[in-house]
Amino acid sequence: MTVTSRQIRLAKRPVGLPDISTWELTTEELPAPGPGQILVAVDHISIDPAMRGWLNDTRSYVPPVGIGEVMRAIATGTVIASESPERPVGSHVRGMFGVADHVIVDAATTDPIDPAIASEATWLGALGMPGMTAYFGLFDVGRLRDGETVVVSGAAGAVGSVVGQLAKARGCRVIGIAGGPDKCAWLEEIGFDAAIDYRQGDVTAKLRELVPGGIDVYFDNVGGEILDAALANLRRGARIVLCGAISSYNAEDLPPGPQRYMALLVFRASMTGFLVFDYADRFPEGVAAIAALIDSGALVARETVVGGGIEGFPEALLGIYQGINTGKLVLTVP
Amino acid sequence: MTVTSRQIRLAKRPVGLPDISTWELTTEELPAPGPGQILVAVDHISIDPAMRGWLNDTRSYVPPVGIGEVMRAIATGTVIASESPERPVGSHVRGMFGVADHVIVDAATTDPIDPAIASEATWLGALGMPGMTAYFGLFDVGRLRDGETVVVSGAAGAVGSVVGQLAKARGCRVIGIAGGPDKCAWLEEIGFDAAIDYRQGDVTAKLRELVPGGIDVYFDNVGGEILDAALANLRRGARIVLCGAISSYNAEDLPPGPQRYMALLVFRASMTGFLVFDYADRFPEGVAAIAALIDSGALVARETVVGGGIEGFPEALLGIYQGINTGKLVLTVP
Repeated sequence: MTVTSRQIRLAKRPVGLPDISTWELTTEELPAPGPGQILVAVDHISIDPAMRGWLNDTRSYVPPVGIGEVMRAIATGTVIASESPERPVGSHVRGMFGVADHVIVDAATTDPIDPAIASEATWLGALGMPGMTAYFGLFDVGRLRDGETVVVSGAAGAVGSVVGQLAKARGCRVIGIAGGPDKCAWLEEIGFDAAIDYRQGDVTAKLRELVPGGIDVYFDNVGGEILDAALANLRRGARIVLCGAISSYNAEDLPPGPQRYMALLVFRASMTGFLVFDYADRFPEGVAAIAALIDSGALVARETVVGGGIEGFPEALLGIYQGINTGKLVLTVP
Repeated sequence: MTVTSRQIRLAKRPVGLPDISTWELTTEELPAPGPGQILVAVDHISIDPAMRGWLNDTRSYVPPVGIGEVMRAIATGTVIASESPERPVGSHVRGMFGVADHVIVDAATTDPIDPAIASEATWLGALGMPGMTAYFGLFDVGRLRDGETVVVSGAAGAVGSVVGQLAKARGCRVIGIAGGPDKCAWLEEIGFDAAIDYRQGDVTAKLRELVPGGIDVYFDNVGGEILDAALANLRRGARIVLCGAISSYNAEDLPPGPQRYMALLVFRASMTGFLVFDYADRFPEGVAAIAALIDSGALVARETVVGGGIEGFPEALLGIYQGINTGKLVLTVP
């Protein structure tokens, strides 16, 4: 059996927003899997805000995607040929498969996923990296205590929506910041105490009104002016969890930093960055906790699924920066 | 006995640098001290970078100095009349006396100081708030571990010079950042491994050269571009201790924030603000530790003493933002 694989590769490093010249579509014949390897038919590809950063040739937490390399992506799929007894044909797996419709990988680099617990898309969302990011960011980095006041930006996204629901499950007051009335309405529907539409006016003033006593934990997915709005509304001893800065990922120059950072001093507060990969050995704990909340109905896992196969990747990637998604953005591969 | 007291009061809130119209000199007759009170002849007034912030009518960790109020200052002096058995005439005290040559205060609001341990000026410096700021900032906020690499800005100042020497005493590698060759030479004289003169070129590049493995603890007294230079040179797990931002205290508009703050994410690092007053119940621990190092010769306490009495205050205050001091800046009152 030979299988033809189609991939999206990085043709050229983008300046600002990636465009059509950033990518090239390539095709290759895959051999049969070797010992310990599996052939995976990719079903779902995770579209992540962090992807833009992987395209820059700068020192970061992972090496950049090289010119001519398949675009890095986490994905799920079905094993269609196997030389690994632990990943039999027909089983479902998750791994760093890249933007490709078929891949051969070492079975040991994949995680088995159980569709009886949740859909493949949810294994990329609430039970995947975004869920783990929410869980360890909120509890370990943010040291959340029951009953505190939590504000999360990018609240209707894959990470933010889990952050807010995890905090609600701990009896916290939770305010979400998101873009547009539909997202805000959804946040209130899933239990957020209030939602702020950052497109409608002054977030700083809105926070002051909604959180007069100040924020205990601010979980930041967006950076920019919203981070400054949160800094202006901290409570003493506040923790800012720095998860992302989607507002600036496509900026051509380094955007302005948080002007109000000295609020950290006034409020004896901290701002701490983290990367979810550092918690890999504790992912089973995070998955178990979130799966239990999904099972009990206390946590809604939502995905926005876009079609179009791997050819749809360039547009889907732009979509995440336009905020087209509610919950996790996933690209399906037919 | 009546005593005439002369004070410097806030006449007008400054915009940018304070000037002569900011202040007024007033005189008043003091009555005899009442029960529990003492009359203090002020000898030394502490000139602190934080003073500029106290002049702004904005929400902060302490209320602003009111128009017409005596300028807030920590000072030391000699008790010249006492209705408190615990602070007899002739004893030395420290307290929030303000910029005045004589004050009547409740004895309970003062600390006794022992000139046999160190001079009054040192009780305002290495054994005063700056020393406590260095000690609790470095060990509690910065969680310094033996042998780590420490970078401190404002290194030749009252706080910075103690930070560096405390870290050296714990076997750390210490780089100081200061303004001018004399200060840098002094830092190397008191044991810093290297000093960077920020007036001579690119601090980011200099740090990269001196600290190729990255910074574990960056103790920031200055903010601005030097904070960005440190952010660009962190080691994984680094802690930034946010103590001050002297570079911006006189800015008329909120200055730019740290553009490279997302380095906190890449390096899994934190930036934490603190105020030394929160450690008041542990000051005896800090004083004992620093006094022991002074006694053994492991720590040099240095002060820059300027004269001129309380009339010299406006100029002395400008001086701290010009960096005229090496070590603690103290104004003497004849």
